[in-house]
Amino acid sequence: MPDDSLAALTAEVRAFADERDWARFHSPRNLAMALSVEANELLELYLWCADDGPQPLHPARQPKVADEAADVLMCLLNFADRAGIDLAEALRTKLMEAERKYPADQVRGKALKYDEY
Amino acid sequence: MPDDSLAALTAEVRAFADERDWARFHSPRNLAMALSVEANELLELYLWCADDGPQPLHPARQPKVADEAADVLMCLLNFADRAGIDLAEALRTKLMEAERKYPADQVRGKALKYDEY
Amino acid sequence: MPDDSLAALTAEVRAFADERDWARFHSPRNLAMALSVEANELLELYLWCADDGPQPLHPARQPKVADEAADVLMCLLNFADRAGIDLAEALRTKLMEAERKYPADQVRGKALKYDEY
Amino acid sequence: MPDDSLAALTAEVRAFADERDWARFHSPRNLAMALSVEANELLELYLWCADDGPQPLHPARQPKVADEAADVLMCLLNFADRAGIDLAEALRTKLMEAERKYPADQVRGKALKYDEY
Repeated sequence: MPDDSLAALTAEVRAFADERDWARFHSPRNLAMALSVEANELLELYLWCADDGPQPLHPARQPKVADEAADVLMCLLNFADRAGIDLAEALRTKLMEAERKYPADQVRGKALKYDEY
Repeated sequence: MPDDSLAALTAEVRAFADERDWARFHSPRNLAMALSVEANELLELYLWCADDGPQPLHPARQPKVADEAADVLMCLLNFADRAGIDLAEALRTKLMEAERKYPADQVRGKALKYDEY
Repeated sequence: MPDDSLAALTAEVRAFADERDWARFHSPRNLAMALSVEANELLELYLWCADDGPQPLHPARQPKVADEAADVLMCLLNFADRAGIDLAEALRTKLMEAERKYPADQVRGKALKYDEY
Repeated sequence: MPDDSLAALTAEVRAFADERDWARFHSPRNLAMALSVEANELLELYLWCADDGPQPLHPARQPKVADEAADVLMCLLNFADRAGIDLAEALRTKLMEAERKYPADQVRGKALKYDEY
């Protein structure tokens, strides 16, 4: 089975950029911009549903979803690599904080995770 | 060393949502929206530099970078999980296509990856 | 009745930045980043509906909608001002092209405006 | 001189959608998504500069700037129209609050408008 560790995937993404001498365009700021752009190319695939329910994706768009999601991951791995962030550790820190902030028995079924406005 | 495979991280993120019965808010469309929102919270940390070079990040913002990057990863893992996408496979497919599209010896040092306008 | 022309609103937004000497942060690139960030602060208000229809906005979020939309307009006016764009003219050019591209009698009621994938 | 009031521009944008019966796709949530997507198509034009200064835009991208900015305005006008927001009033309210929050003589030349992290 192929290696799906963040370390292995990051090494592959980094090698791709290094072979093309593209690292110099890869400042964290540039990569943060690119991450937003790629996230929105993914979002675009979900535009213009009639908004009265979770319509199935337009068939012509289905094959593009994996492609755009991969672009987001590529940007995110490049960003974390250049910004010196351990994504797995950051994610687990985040989950631990969220466990404390949103105790399962108090928030079950409520979309209040963003309701602290 | 902790497991940094996408499979392990996805399982942790899914367990967190399941314990809170939040999966029902996690349609692919909603998660694609959330992914853009989180990517822009990361981007916000890089705003309002003077744009005459890669300024160091404002010190008060530094600790937030890992935190916001983790939010992006959490959304992306949730999205791929709900949309039925194998992110590692999609990334490697993408890299193989990009190898063909941008041969290293022809594009070295040129930012032309997005210049096909 | 207050003047709602783009020219008048742009002049007010520009005066605000000039009085604070903020114009030097207002490169088109920085303002394009800010525009995305502000658009996503607006989008955040619509997150985490159950996605089975156009739910009413959470009441606590309602007063924020006008506020965030105003931020988007402020960024857009600043951007156009610095990039030397006549927004009203650009919009009318766009509408004329769209009239040709999507003849009303052929596209009525179809969400195909983005279906050229 | 053509009318550049928000009221006139909104009326033109609304007529375009009405003639195509597209209003039913224009829920505020859908339009907020579209606004983010359009803002990122604009942002994409500024990607992959070397980040060591405000490089001139790639010449091939220049003509697209006005076009993408017009798309953002069209979305924003549609959004405000459907969400029942008076954009000019909201902008002026915002500017008045900002005048109080960032007194010109205290913040001149400092990029601290977002430094309250």
